[in-house]
Amino acid sequence: MMLRTRAQCLEADRNDPLAEHRDAFVLPPETIYLDGNSLGALPGAVDACLRATVTEQWGQGLIRGWNDHDWIGLPMRLGEKIAPLIGAASDQVIVADSVSVNLYKLLAAALALRPGRSVILSSEDNFPTDLYIAQGLCELLGKERCELLLVDRSRLVNSIGNNTAVVMLTHVDFRSGRLWDMQTITRHVHEAGALMLWDLAHSAGALPLKLDAYGVDLAVGCGYKYLNGGPGAPAFLYVAKTHHSHAAQPLSGWMGHAQPFAFSPSYEPAQGIRGFQTGTPPVLSYRALEAALTLWENVDLAQVREKSVRLSETFIELVEGSETLAEFDLNSPRQASERGSHVAFAHPFGYAIMRALIDRGVIGDFREPDLLRFGFAPLYTRYVDVWDAVEHLRGVMLNREYETSQHQAPKRVT
Amino acid sequence: MMLRTRAQCLEADRNDPLAEHRDAFVLPPETIYLDGNSLGALPGAVDACLRATVTEQWGQGLIRGWNDHDWIGLPMRLGEKIAPLIGAASDQVIVADSVSVNLYKLLAAALALRPGRSVILSSEDNFPTDLYIAQGLCELLGKERCELLLVDRSRLVNSIGNNTAVVMLTHVDFRSGRLWDMQTITRHVHEAGALMLWDLAHSAGALPLKLDAYGVDLAVGCGYKYLNGGPGAPAFLYVAKTHHSHAAQPLSGWMGHAQPFAFSPSYEPAQGIRGFQTGTPPVLSYRALEAALTLWENVDLAQVREKSVRLSETFIELVEGSETLAEFDLNSPRQASERGSHVAFAHPFGYAIMRALIDRGVIGDFREPDLLRFGFAPLYTRYVDVWDAVEHLRGVMLNREYETSQHQAPKRVT
Repeated sequence: MMLRTRAQCLEADRNDPLAEHRDAFVLPPETIYLDGNSLGALPGAVDACLRATVTEQWGQGLIRGWNDHDWIGLPMRLGEKIAPLIGAASDQVIVADSVSVNLYKLLAAALALRPGRSVILSSEDNFPTDLYIAQGLCELLGKERCELLLVDRSRLVNSIGNNTAVVMLTHVDFRSGRLWDMQTITRHVHEAGALMLWDLAHSAGALPLKLDAYGVDLAVGCGYKYLNGGPGAPAFLYVAKTHHSHAAQPLSGWMGHAQPFAFSPSYEPAQGIRGFQTGTPPVLSYRALEAALTLWENVDLAQVREKSVRLSETFIELVEGSETLAEFDLNSPRQASERGSHVAFAHPFGYAIMRALIDRGVIGDFREPDLLRFGFAPLYTRYVDVWDAVEHLRGVMLNREYETSQHQAPKRVT
Repeated sequence: MMLRTRAQCLEADRNDPLAEHRDAFVLPPETIYLDGNSLGALPGAVDACLRATVTEQWGQGLIRGWNDHDWIGLPMRLGEKIAPLIGAASDQVIVADSVSVNLYKLLAAALALRPGRSVILSSEDNFPTDLYIAQGLCELLGKERCELLLVDRSRLVNSIGNNTAVVMLTHVDFRSGRLWDMQTITRHVHEAGALMLWDLAHSAGALPLKLDAYGVDLAVGCGYKYLNGGPGAPAFLYVAKTHHSHAAQPLSGWMGHAQPFAFSPSYEPAQGIRGFQTGTPPVLSYRALEAALTLWENVDLAQVREKSVRLSETFIELVEGSETLAEFDLNSPRQASERGSHVAFAHPFGYAIMRALIDRGVIGDFREPDLLRFGFAPLYTRYVDVWDAVEHLRGVMLNREYETSQHQAPKRVT
């Protein structure tokens, strides 16, 4: 049922099976946060976890923390917590480095798994760092061994060829929120003998995923968006078990060694997903992510998706139903089944409007050239937040607040 | 003057110009910590800094933290704090990733700066992850373009040849503490037309360094040892200004882009050291390191070195002067000028002895096959700690405590 009044939104919040999860977060007063797709809100458990990690584990335990508090096990332990969120069985996910560094490892691994094929195929609108990393690898290896082919998303499937080693796509587009059909694309890729690498930055924690079931080969994802691990939280990577005996990656640091503490001069990769580690993990950031991941233990991702869709639909309907907002152009797919958990509207004064909205305490973000982006994090976004956000947007437009606010150029991280 | 009694050690502590810095650390009671070369002790300022970062900057500021609290500036800001500790002028140091990942960037950059040369030359006893990373790069590039040549350290200088692109060495050996002569080696390397890459893991914060003055090309270093940034703290890297206009690295993620937030599909590296960034930095771990780095603002590194030498000399003299400890074999150079800030002794029962020492609250560490390693961190290690540690070691041997303690195999991080 469409929510047409604020009272109906409040009623929907009362009936929300996920409502109690909001209490696990610390949110600033007088703020409507619609940017959890960029940086997730603070789980209340993080502060105490970090204090204990700093003062007890590090301060009192000192070097013994690696064993006594199993810091050394963090990359695998956190990987196991993320695995069920992305439809992965055990021993296939590890937390390591950043999305960018992990992409490098997996692209290099993919090229090695498909000798004789040199193309990394992606869409022009893929998230820039994914493309930059592929470019860096190709420049290092030379065109004979590695070529990045970028096509319009409409031509993606038809561009998969005999020379395609790996197709690299971001499941949810960072601008429009448009979803790739993971199952269909992965099948096409496999039919061509190539490997499929999904970037789950805007997917993990936003909707149910089925990596194992769809036979996905490789994936990376982000700890700081819907997983709420904190600014720049460590990223994760997935390598399907079927590739464990063959896959290898070039960032072969000591944490990926079969016996890191034997201090042998020759690299011998650890079995399976452990071999995708590189250097010593930044424990404090891992522990914050660990505290954040405990929130997901009893969450039904089908409910997350259902609420995400209803939040997004409500937002779109309220914007589209308002004459005051007639100039806002939906940049996201109108069909909920084709969207992730954020929605983008274009407006020629987009940047100034978003600044004015933020001044009112409604935090979304802006993406060049003219997109206002609003993210809905079902664990803490309420229906009434959506209602109030649209009311504020109407206020900004009615009062032409975007004309008077003076703001600097944007400098913001997704 | 040699310290021959506990009273003399206490007197030396009273006269220590660095004594006040110990108050900046939180150390566990009844513990003598001689493993700061592996994981630095906790600076008291870290807890409050992290609490503010979590609860205020992230919790209240949310996405605005990237601008309002300049998270985006952390890699450069922390680099500027480290620069004076390693003898580097401004704009040449950045905090990023791990030592391993940074080595990969710099080795690849070095090979590209020396086209036609394929050899990465190092010593067999270099820290394993340095060798593993070079192996990974060479396997990816093939022997024609990249070959790792490992030689005994005595043959290092004579092994630099026309085909040497880069010499990669760890300034202070992780086992023995032996120092390379940075100035002389760097000069030899340059005479052969090669580049010099120093790993400063056990050097930064332990003794004065002169990277600029010696014309060092490239360097990496560790945030979690003498810099006290916390377990797995982010690492740093140095690229001499002379290379900024030519050097490029393959891990070209969005944070190294000239305009990360323009979201252009093509990578264009940022000028200078900024281009050596890759992914989004783990802010919480950076902030802990930032709090730790403030401790160095008024520290005279000449005093640090002087104290480090005297602590080490006292330790060695006390061990060598004790009949009870006659079976301990000094594995470190006897000349202070040839050592970093830790000392290693070999003993056939080394592992069990270290466990027994730890049971007594004296924390050093053990390295295969038989090395007991003791690190001296001049900001918080006292002369009386050295005295007491040797007394405990004598106690362990006199009571044969190493025979009775039952311990598991080691699993420890340097």
